[in-house]
Amino acid sequence: MIRLLVTGGTFDKEYDEIGGTLFFKDTHVDEMLRLGRCRVPVAVETVMLLDSLQMSDADRAVIADRCRACDETRIVVTHGTDTMVETAAVLALSVPDKTIVLTGAMIPYAFGSSDGLFNLGSAISFAQVLPPGVWVAMNGTHFAWNEVTKDRAAGVFVRRSDGTG
Amino acid sequence: MIRLLVTGGTFDKEYDEIGGTLFFKDTHVDEMLRLGRCRVPVAVETVMLLDSLQMSDADRAVIADRCRACDETRIVVTHGTDTMVETAAVLALSVPDKTIVLTGAMIPYAFGSSDGLFNLGSAISFAQVLPPGVWVAMNGTHFAWNEVTKDRAAGVFVRRSDGTG
Amino acid sequence: MIRLLVTGGTFDKEYDEIGGTLFFKDTHVDEMLRLGRCRVPVAVETVMLLDSLQMSDADRAVIADRCRACDETRIVVTHGTDTMVETAAVLALSVPDKTIVLTGAMIPYAFGSSDGLFNLGSAISFAQVLPPGVWVAMNGTHFAWNEVTKDRAAGVFVRRSDGTG
Amino acid sequence: MIRLLVTGGTFDKEYDEIGGTLFFKDTHVDEMLRLGRCRVPVAVETVMLLDSLQMSDADRAVIADRCRACDETRIVVTHGTDTMVETAAVLALSVPDKTIVLTGAMIPYAFGSSDGLFNLGSAISFAQVLPPGVWVAMNGTHFAWNEVTKDRAAGVFVRRSDGTG
Repeated sequence: MIRLLVTGGTFDKEYDEIGGTLFFKDTHVDEMLRLGRCRVPVAVETVMLLDSLQMSDADRAVIADRCRACDETRIVVTHGTDTMVETAAVLALSVPDKTIVLTGAMIPYAFGSSDGLFNLGSAISFAQVLPPGVWVAMNGTHFAWNEVTKDRAAGVFVRRSDGTG
Repeated sequence: MIRLLVTGGTFDKEYDEIGGTLFFKDTHVDEMLRLGRCRVPVAVETVMLLDSLQMSDADRAVIADRCRACDETRIVVTHGTDTMVETAAVLALSVPDKTIVLTGAMIPYAFGSSDGLFNLGSAISFAQVLPPGVWVAMNGTHFAWNEVTKDRAAGVFVRRSDGTG
Repeated sequence: MIRLLVTGGTFDKEYDEIGGTLFFKDTHVDEMLRLGRCRVPVAVETVMLLDSLQMSDADRAVIADRCRACDETRIVVTHGTDTMVETAAVLALSVPDKTIVLTGAMIPYAFGSSDGLFNLGSAISFAQVLPPGVWVAMNGTHFAWNEVTKDRAAGVFVRRSDGTG
Repeated sequence: MIRLLVTGGTFDKEYDEIGGTLFFKDTHVDEMLRLGRCRVPVAVETVMLLDSLQMSDADRAVIADRCRACDETRIVVTHGTDTMVETAAVLALSVPDKTIVLTGAMIPYAFGSSDGLFNLGSAISFAQVLPPGVWVAMNGTHFAWNEVTKDRAAGVFVRRSDGTG
């Protein structure tokens, strides 16, 4: 059994047709698992629905609490990409002995061209086979939490080049 | 670098609007990798485009040849689901020392509701971390080639119950 | 109020993931009207779900009966394209004084690339403004029932060239 | 031949994956006409790509100029919904003797759930059969320019209730 913690991010943004803006209503993760015909048992839990630029230290503490508290030892966290690496660092320091895979999307799932379905299939797969630790799974790749950074200009995750990872 | 061998299957079926039937034209795998913003280097090679019910022993020998001949040691094979397990057995006997992951879809990618994008993200992920051997990756799960069978009535892959695996 | 009679056709074909073939389950017209945010009152009635190549004279008589029997004087009929013109001729001879617009699709709506949503918007629009008579509305065009034929090789509707229309 | 003037609006908004916002790049109208397999000759011309809340009197004058200058007497204008009625009024006063149909969408076409394809099919159909004048075609309905208002709270176009139309 995999625990999937929803925290928001581009994954779950929708178009508000009255205001013409993007907003959160509900997570699409259940629909995505159904579409992917996922047969791995996944317990989906919406912890919050936030743009990760709005995420505070207190929010990250809540996510860490949920990771520690759940029975499952294999966890997927859907998360906005902008601060995914920061949350990964918090989880690495506060949740020992579990395999935690953070994933997200560059395009909202509600847009037909979403990378979310691909990333979700990837994250659920990595969560089953990677050893305990905190990982970022994006675009088919996976990185240990301290070996990755987001190149915001290019909109992609890359290996950290500063050697401090 | 991952080698991805296209052999056809539901993944790549399209709708022929003149005849009102399903047929193969080209693979959609390149488009799917682009949509998934895949950043793992993947060398895509179309070996054949067949409904797997039409696949002969000679066809399977060609696929095995391509697995052996390529430089890469991590290989994804897209394949129709009906005889995916048969092909997996052939590859297990004839391609030593490589990690080969077979995947497919229950719904053509050209249909919006395809499970293909989810499965492709999953297969590419498993191919990076599983040890040498032949694996079937469908619906988020992975099975060793000799532990899986397709339940054709239900349209899903399940663990073999006969203990011979 | 427009009466919309569903008779099947490519519009409503779905993919059977067990058998790998196309089949009919339910009409997608309600979902399509919701997607199009249609605000014209439309009473949807499923008369039959047939590939139009399978449609018999008795089936056409049933459609004509439903056209005559309903209160509405403006009717849209969704129909397979292969024999749409034949059905139009039957309706022209047996349903006086109503505006009837037949429409369909070359690609099933369940495929993302369907022309069905475009054609449905078109047919509902023509049905509101065309005078009594039987019309075929496809691909943004409209033809009187006796001025149109399907070019099956090209998969399009064209003006009849035999001058008998 | 129909002239189709693109002015922007929700129709053509895209998701900017770097900034996480909506923006304009190119019109999707050509792709939509191809998807709808439109066989009415349509000359597409991008006049501007604006959110209609940003549209100035000068912009409206440009649109009116294009309507007057083109050879075609049947014109479709794609337009943001927020000020579609204002532009319709300008066109009504400055472009005599042509049939002009304004249309738009509540959801960007790039979102899979767009009403744009339905509305485009509808607008192109109304443009062929309505008499000279300026019309708003949304959600399957059509209104004369002076009989319609947008209910912004509900996000729909309704008949004006003030009797001044």
